[in-house]
Amino acid sequence: MNRAVVLLSGGLDSTTVLAMAVAEKLEITALSFSYGQKHTLELKKAQKIAEHYKVKEHIVIDLDTEPFRGSALTDNIAVPENRTDLSTEIPATYVPARNTIFLAIALGIAESRGADSIFIGVNSLDYSGYPDCRPEFIDAFQNLASLATKTAVEGRPPSIKAPLLYMTKAAIIKKGIQLGVDYGMTLSCYQPDENGKSCGVCDACILRLEGFRANDLEDPAVYREKTHG
Amino acid sequence: MNRAVVLLSGGLDSTTVLAMAVAEKLEITALSFSYGQKHTLELKKAQKIAEHYKVKEHIVIDLDTEPFRGSALTDNIAVPENRTDLSTEIPATYVPARNTIFLAIALGIAESRGADSIFIGVNSLDYSGYPDCRPEFIDAFQNLASLATKTAVEGRPPSIKAPLLYMTKAAIIKKGIQLGVDYGMTLSCYQPDENGKSCGVCDACILRLEGFRANDLEDPAVYREKTHG
Repeated sequence: MNRAVVLLSGGLDSTTVLAMAVAEKLEITALSFSYGQKHTLELKKAQKIAEHYKVKEHIVIDLDTEPFRGSALTDNIAVPENRTDLSTEIPATYVPARNTIFLAIALGIAESRGADSIFIGVNSLDYSGYPDCRPEFIDAFQNLASLATKTAVEGRPPSIKAPLLYMTKAAIIKKGIQLGVDYGMTLSCYQPDENGKSCGVCDACILRLEGFRANDLEDPAVYREKTHG
Repeated sequence: MNRAVVLLSGGLDSTTVLAMAVAEKLEITALSFSYGQKHTLELKKAQKIAEHYKVKEHIVIDLDTEPFRGSALTDNIAVPENRTDLSTEIPATYVPARNTIFLAIALGIAESRGADSIFIGVNSLDYSGYPDCRPEFIDAFQNLASLATKTAVEGRPPSIKAPLLYMTKAAIIKKGIQLGVDYGMTLSCYQPDENGKSCGVCDACILRLEGFRANDLEDPAVYREKTHG
């Protein structure tokens, strides 16, 4: 049984990726990070999702927040709302070097667990222009991973798998529904309220809502106002 | 004044690199890691060295030990001693993905601080065959860093500087002496005793002792037996 490390934020994308890895009958180490994000509800969601899929282990890494300063997800900076063109600039929700750090730690965990693949739910179509979600970033990390570790030198470099890289949000949701994903378990919003209700106006909510609409489906997430979804 | 992040373990190499960065009149963020290493004396050394060089700030990042399992530096595994050919195999002191993780976090800190360079004291000549100390690893990380961050996308990728990469240990020590480095402040040993005395027989001690001998100098480090140094 092959072993895989799956990055799991508790959002729609990473949960779909987890379902895809489960469908491949891999033995899974789910990996989440507490990195000073303002809302930690996503970690609770990740925990429940990991339990739902009966993963082999779920690791939550507590990261020092020093590298992550200056983001709307970690600091007292407003989350952009109601953006209409998500491709024009890198928004304030960008977190410095986040995916580089997450993948680097996943690489160490993969090696210590004997895992031969690392799954990450990055997407380069319906996303917010983050530099570390682009295909060239994944290629560069694969190149690094192919020579950075003892396992790699021994001829068994881990494979960095980003199965959503070229999928639209609508296609991701369609795939997840086929795999039986209950998207009610997931949380995408950058600024949910204390009851876990999504805002409906941040980039993550906008992309998610459009994805469900394109599938003629209702988003099972709970939004603050009934006009959304 | 240009800003730099300098990885500082408290050993001979990273201290020399710090002295080189200081000589370039850079504003320095020294960066050390507590990653479950069995002896934490090196962190105390790093603290004193950072103070000695009056760096702008010294950050010590507390890392979860999950990725680092299975090494003689972190687990209950013997440190190899009296090895005669250090180039034949990757030794038990290899730590999974360590430099990848350290550089990834340095990348985030560099971006949040506006630093345009990251200094690391890796060396590919007198070393222990670690995959993440090789020139191709540094090249691959530079390639990754050149597209992973917002700063990089804006045309200002950080430069990964590894000034010791092609230097022998003897040349590194010679350079450090020229720069006035007090190597008595540094600790290289993988298994110092409770009094901070070095073993003289691990790879790190062997390489260090040979480096001082080649310069006709006495190593100011304190060893357990007088026969060393």
